[in-house]
Amino acid sequence: MIIIAALLAAAPLSPADIAAAAPPSAWRAVVPENLMLVETPRGTMAIELAPDFAPAHIAAIRALVAAGRFDGGAITRVQDNYVVQWAARPGPDKTLTSGGAAAVAAGSTATPGGVAVGSGPGPAHPAILPAEYERPAKGLAITPLGSVDTYAPSGFWNGWPVARDPKAGTAWLAHCYASVGVGRDNPPDTGDGSELYAVIGHGPRHLDRNITVVGRVIDGIPDFSSLARGTGPLGFYKTPAEQTVLTKVRFATAADPRYEVLRSDSPAFAAYLAARTNRTGFFVRPAGATDLCNVQVPVRVAK
Amino acid sequence: MIIIAALLAAAPLSPADIAAAAPPSAWRAVVPENLMLVETPRGTMAIELAPDFAPAHIAAIRALVAAGRFDGGAITRVQDNYVVQWAARPGPDKTLTSGGAAAVAAGSTATPGGVAVGSGPGPAHPAILPAEYERPAKGLAITPLGSVDTYAPSGFWNGWPVARDPKAGTAWLAHCYASVGVGRDNPPDTGDGSELYAVIGHGPRHLDRNITVVGRVIDGIPDFSSLARGTGPLGFYKTPAEQTVLTKVRFATAADPRYEVLRSDSPAFAAYLAARTNRTGFFVRPAGATDLCNVQVPVRVAK
Repeated sequence: MIIIAALLAAAPLSPADIAAAAPPSAWRAVVPENLMLVETPRGTMAIELAPDFAPAHIAAIRALVAAGRFDGGAITRVQDNYVVQWAARPGPDKTLTSGGAAAVAAGSTATPGGVAVGSGPGPAHPAILPAEYERPAKGLAITPLGSVDTYAPSGFWNGWPVARDPKAGTAWLAHCYASVGVGRDNPPDTGDGSELYAVIGHGPRHLDRNITVVGRVIDGIPDFSSLARGTGPLGFYKTPAEQTVLTKVRFATAADPRYEVLRSDSPAFAAYLAARTNRTGFFVRPAGATDLCNVQVPVRVAK
Repeated sequence: MIIIAALLAAAPLSPADIAAAAPPSAWRAVVPENLMLVETPRGTMAIELAPDFAPAHIAAIRALVAAGRFDGGAITRVQDNYVVQWAARPGPDKTLTSGGAAAVAAGSTATPGGVAVGSGPGPAHPAILPAEYERPAKGLAITPLGSVDTYAPSGFWNGWPVARDPKAGTAWLAHCYASVGVGRDNPPDTGDGSELYAVIGHGPRHLDRNITVVGRVIDGIPDFSSLARGTGPLGFYKTPAEQTVLTKVRFATAADPRYEVLRSDSPAFAAYLAARTNRTGFFVRPAGATDLCNVQVPVRVAK
């Protein structure tokens, strides 16, 4: 044992090594009913939804999927260092939004041509869902991040990056790379689920508790983060020809790949988090800390 | 004045509004001799170099550019949520690296197929440049971030996102979206400037003080962040056919677009930073804080 310990000390495992070596008990299955597949000619995004955080918005999304409203919809917006956004087709009765109105707020003016915040024209939303921007923290056994995050005390619950407000007793899903949220217009609109976005840049944590986060992309995001950026305001495409069609949006079945997420409460995750916090090997100076979004929770395809 | 103040309180300016309204005195010019233009069939990246932080590596890059070594080079690696990396052609005398050896460390195992840290084959580097991972903070009047950053006390100097170590008295350029660094192999190698990368994902702050940062992309990054991701280990392309050729890499002349960066010590930047820290309008709950990389310093094309 001493020899093994010495070897480990000499060559600590990388985060990838730790995830690869994690035992079966360290993984939880992504259940098919929470796995939304966004199929396009470009590839498929596999999105795990988090009904523990946004049940009403996810119910709305399920209804839209069941009605086939996303089929024939499109990716309407790709803003660099910010989001990929897609929209359902407008409903026949127009009671659901809108086709292009809801917009996540503009990211920045980092580059020339940066754009102002704004939203396009569109009918008012007739039904306002509850603002699922946070939930009671009670009942969530959150594994602490172990570092001071700029925005709020943070950690992981069930594989999700979570921040919390100790005074208010609330918790919420953080906006990290690959997080999926519900586009909305201005308050009190909370979005109806017919326009969704995935983060493809630096974690826009200023959106936390301002928009409903419903899940995260657990597979396939490179085919979408590499889409051409839209050249209209907020990164919307100027013409339909630039959009990527949504061939089919559906929930997974037993025939689809099964995914597993590293459990936040497993020893393997604790080791992974420690290795992310203090990298070794190539690194000459471990950071000694990590922000919440710099710890991407490992996902694998189940064997 | 009371009326104006009331109006401002009712409709505070967005960060974009503030940048757009900043007076000429709030901007500093990017000098052509520090503006490196990476020209490709896909578009041009305009990179401002920071010789105040990495003079030796930037001198090496200048020599490579002057020798035409990047012309005919290629983008060899695009790793999702991490970096775009490009390489000079191998030198005729082989005294400079290498063509594919130096690699920024692997990012994560966030998605299935995540890869282990490693570096490819290649000749040893005959000349080791000084590790310009940090510099004395003395002489840098850093505008404080005003929020607690996870990694280190942080702020802005001359338009650059900077972190510092108060005890050691050092400062360094942070790894944020669009930051440009020098790929290297394992220590004590520091890279020779012939392989460079730009960040295209969540700020990989664990790389801070582990790699030499030489500047940042101030224009054109969307054409490169949207490149197809490489499918080999670390996001390297598997075949030369997948690579994007570097048509020409050169420094700017008076005939090129002139860029300006919002001055860190200007009142306009202070207002911009405050507005980024507490967003208004679309936002229902200001964050009350911001991490360093979530404040992208505005850049514009000079009129």
